[in-house]
Amino acid sequence: MPSYYNRIAGQRIQRIEAISDGIFAVALTLLVLDIKVPISAAIKTEHDLFNALCPLMPKFLSYFLSFMTMGILWTGQTTQFNYIEKYDRNLNWISLFFLLFVTLLPFTTSFLSEHIGFKLSIAIYWLNILSLGLLLLIHWNYAYRHDYINLTGEEKIAINKAVRKRVIIAQSLYAFGALLCFINIYLSIGFIIAVQLNYAFAFFSGKTSKQTPVISSK
Amino acid sequence: MPSYYNRIAGQRIQRIEAISDGIFAVALTLLVLDIKVPISAAIKTEHDLFNALCPLMPKFLSYFLSFMTMGILWTGQTTQFNYIEKYDRNLNWISLFFLLFVTLLPFTTSFLSEHIGFKLSIAIYWLNILSLGLLLLIHWNYAYRHDYINLTGEEKIAINKAVRKRVIIAQSLYAFGALLCFINIYLSIGFIIAVQLNYAFAFFSGKTSKQTPVISSK
Amino acid sequence: MPSYYNRIAGQRIQRIEAISDGIFAVALTLLVLDIKVPISAAIKTEHDLFNALCPLMPKFLSYFLSFMTMGILWTGQTTQFNYIEKYDRNLNWISLFFLLFVTLLPFTTSFLSEHIGFKLSIAIYWLNILSLGLLLLIHWNYAYRHDYINLTGEEKIAINKAVRKRVIIAQSLYAFGALLCFINIYLSIGFIIAVQLNYAFAFFSGKTSKQTPVISSK
Amino acid sequence: MPSYYNRIAGQRIQRIEAISDGIFAVALTLLVLDIKVPISAAIKTEHDLFNALCPLMPKFLSYFLSFMTMGILWTGQTTQFNYIEKYDRNLNWISLFFLLFVTLLPFTTSFLSEHIGFKLSIAIYWLNILSLGLLLLIHWNYAYRHDYINLTGEEKIAINKAVRKRVIIAQSLYAFGALLCFINIYLSIGFIIAVQLNYAFAFFSGKTSKQTPVISSK
Repeated sequence: MPSYYNRIAGQRIQRIEAISDGIFAVALTLLVLDIKVPISAAIKTEHDLFNALCPLMPKFLSYFLSFMTMGILWTGQTTQFNYIEKYDRNLNWISLFFLLFVTLLPFTTSFLSEHIGFKLSIAIYWLNILSLGLLLLIHWNYAYRHDYINLTGEEKIAINKAVRKRVIIAQSLYAFGALLCFINIYLSIGFIIAVQLNYAFAFFSGKTSKQTPVISSK
Repeated sequence: MPSYYNRIAGQRIQRIEAISDGIFAVALTLLVLDIKVPISAAIKTEHDLFNALCPLMPKFLSYFLSFMTMGILWTGQTTQFNYIEKYDRNLNWISLFFLLFVTLLPFTTSFLSEHIGFKLSIAIYWLNILSLGLLLLIHWNYAYRHDYINLTGEEKIAINKAVRKRVIIAQSLYAFGALLCFINIYLSIGFIIAVQLNYAFAFFSGKTSKQTPVISSK
Repeated sequence: MPSYYNRIAGQRIQRIEAISDGIFAVALTLLVLDIKVPISAAIKTEHDLFNALCPLMPKFLSYFLSFMTMGILWTGQTTQFNYIEKYDRNLNWISLFFLLFVTLLPFTTSFLSEHIGFKLSIAIYWLNILSLGLLLLIHWNYAYRHDYINLTGEEKIAINKAVRKRVIIAQSLYAFGALLCFINIYLSIGFIIAVQLNYAFAFFSGKTSKQTPVISSK
Repeated sequence: MPSYYNRIAGQRIQRIEAISDGIFAVALTLLVLDIKVPISAAIKTEHDLFNALCPLMPKFLSYFLSFMTMGILWTGQTTQFNYIEKYDRNLNWISLFFLLFVTLLPFTTSFLSEHIGFKLSIAIYWLNILSLGLLLLIHWNYAYRHDYINLTGEEKIAINKAVRKRVIIAQSLYAFGALLCFINIYLSIGFIIAVQLNYAFAFFSGKTSKQTPVISSK
């Protein structure tokens, strides 16, 4: 039996959304600070400058992938909040732990890119993504089970299924990708990247039908 | 008698909530930047990499605890705002001083972890948490006394009691923990950490009852 | 045919606006950290101090221009959101890619100012601005084509025309400016800067007429 | 005669408020990162640790004063927004320039504290505060003159007077303080600090009367 305080705490949805946006925004912007402008007295021609830029390519790629990953997670979280109309302290702390793992993502991505070719760095990166996926799933399940969802009837069932399915399929693919490291490490990384790209770029795959259940988010 | 300007200033609740979320978000995300990816030419095997990761464990622990502390404070503040419907410049400045001590928390946590084993670093850390607790209490008391609360009747009395009790019990435990440093410094730190963990993880301790006074936060 | 999840994802307008403001705010504030306070034991007189400040002038200028550029883009994005009342995952990802290029702007600006006099740095800076302009245009066109706009009749046509025209004219001017680098590099940079200043300072050019279609943004 | 685009741009009040909160939040939190935890192998006793902490005092004082200054400005801006219900691109850019000078405040404060005793550093610090005050005044006057204020009758006149008076008196005091540097530099700094403290701590000076025109900010 929770205390009375615990029963009244953490109900303010707009605040957890606001702190989430803040944390994602800071994490995304800080990532790019890792890419330093090359400065050298030896740069004399256009060709020199181009050559000085080339070694930055892996950093740009790593930044791009981190941005995709964060974008996928952020979109997943906002999608859930479109349907959640009540909140309590348990959901509040589930979201805070989700954000804890979001702030760790720049570290694990950087750890992977610095120590590419090690199973341990793939394992750590995958554990981070797994935790984020699980927390998103727990978040939704908790809200659904406690009837904090602003949906009824068939739509409720359909959206519940879609949200769960998305997390489970994505996480199965990531887990499969992580396991591939026992065959070949670069195959493993390539597979995980391909999964992320697919989730970000899915919008190239089809036209949104007229029947899309678009609702005004207000 | 305050000036007319002072009577009209600082009434914009959504702004103080927004700047609070911003400050918490930046503080939380910047904390993790302290954890640097280990880079060394001597890392050749999985085992080397694992060994290079081990010394980071205290930093991860310290980050985790700072995150918990900030999460507890943030949740405490949002809970109050769920019931406060009016604001004035005094509340505005109480909140700004609260945020001032929030921004100092990364410093005092880091000071504690760098100088563990000193009574002074425990005293400073505890003073920071004490100030935050007191400011939360002053914030609530001021709003309650001036009738800025959107509650009436029994619920008003019950929630007032719950909010006050929470701060007072938590601060008594922290003060007791700080005093323990005269017996043993590590006992003192361990006790304070246990109190923080309890407030964060209370959600493992019981199921929210159906009668929970959950209200939609709009 | 997109999956059901893709049809429900990314509809939360207030979140994409919030993360945009967060990213712009962090990028703008971090830019200024590049300007270091000059510290030297050799500073003994007011004159010495003034001389120590002078070398910072290019950094201030560069900061000022970056701020203008971000301000123009931010204003462009907020203007669109004043009329968009529905959102979907495609718009969501268009906005995220827009924000990706926003976070790159400090890098490309700094790259330009460190390597002034190279065509390559102008090309990269211009590509960044071009991408941002194109994504703003794609964002608006998508929303307009899918009827996510809260406008009807003549006003819809007029505002659609105004939004498109603004992006197209601005981008034509930037492209012309970039091409000028084949004549003279400083002429090219000067022209681009002049275009940016014009968009920021246009408010010195005329009084807003009484008939301005100002609407309350709630 | 402004273009049609300029007439529709920059009307989204919630966005300018959000980006303001973001910029203030980042600036406030980053300021504290300047205070480094003292680390030295020579720290062996409580007394050593205390001595290592003492040299940080000027940094804490400087941080405290910057926080106060930003708090005063932030409160001033939020107070205006409590009454402004319409917005246009000119107000939008006035606010962006206000934020430009907010982001410069950490630099000018740091410049003052590093080069205390120079007239030039007082002049630069004062110019920063003057610009901020002027932009706040221009912001209010513009909104008032264009009838973007959600007030009528006597209240409109009273609040208009109070907002203007506040900025003008404060700026006169700052200007007087800056001029004092021709008598004695430390007198000048002390006076400016005293003015800032008074504006922040005014809430110790009187009880808010029951007739306070507190309105719910929704």
